[in-house]
Amino acid sequence: MTSLIIGLCAGMLCMVSFLPQLIKIVRTKQTKDLSLITFSVLSVGVFLWLIYGILIGELPIILSNAFIFVLSLLIVAMKIKYK
Amino acid sequence: MTSLIIGLCAGMLCMVSFLPQLIKIVRTKQTKDLSLITFSVLSVGVFLWLIYGILIGELPIILSNAFIFVLSLLIVAMKIKYK
Repeated sequence: MTSLIIGLCAGMLCMVSFLPQLIKIVRTKQTKDLSLITFSVLSVGVFLWLIYGILIGELPIILSNAFIFVLSLLIVAMKIKYK
Repeated sequence: MTSLIIGLCAGMLCMVSFLPQLIKIVRTKQTKDLSLITFSVLSVGVFLWLIYGILIGELPIILSNAFIFVLSLLIVAMKIKYK
């Protein structure tokens, strides 16, 4: 139960953490200092975490990584668009 | 066994994903487009994932999040230094 709560908090924080970066890009249309490799590799990694979460049946891992995957892909798309 | 391999790959990719961003900052000394909130909140979230990994005894989660926590903190430190 403790692990579920900590996992949900961890997932929640990691999920919301990418929102300010996304908002910053939308506002400034500047992505020069962001690493395309970082967010591309991160997207693949997070997708594998999602698969991993499904395999071990851990809800916090599944939910947070599904959300982070979408945000990370959006950052990659904007990095390509505004480069 | 499959989940362990996928988890280790996921952890490995997420770990290495932050290196290009760190290298980019060291090289350019530019962090204007990076969101301080993103990397600060991410650091706390990743630290909680580390605790979660310890609690449920999952090695891929422990190893990758310990590494990402250090890299994320370094990015936060450089964002503050080079702002």
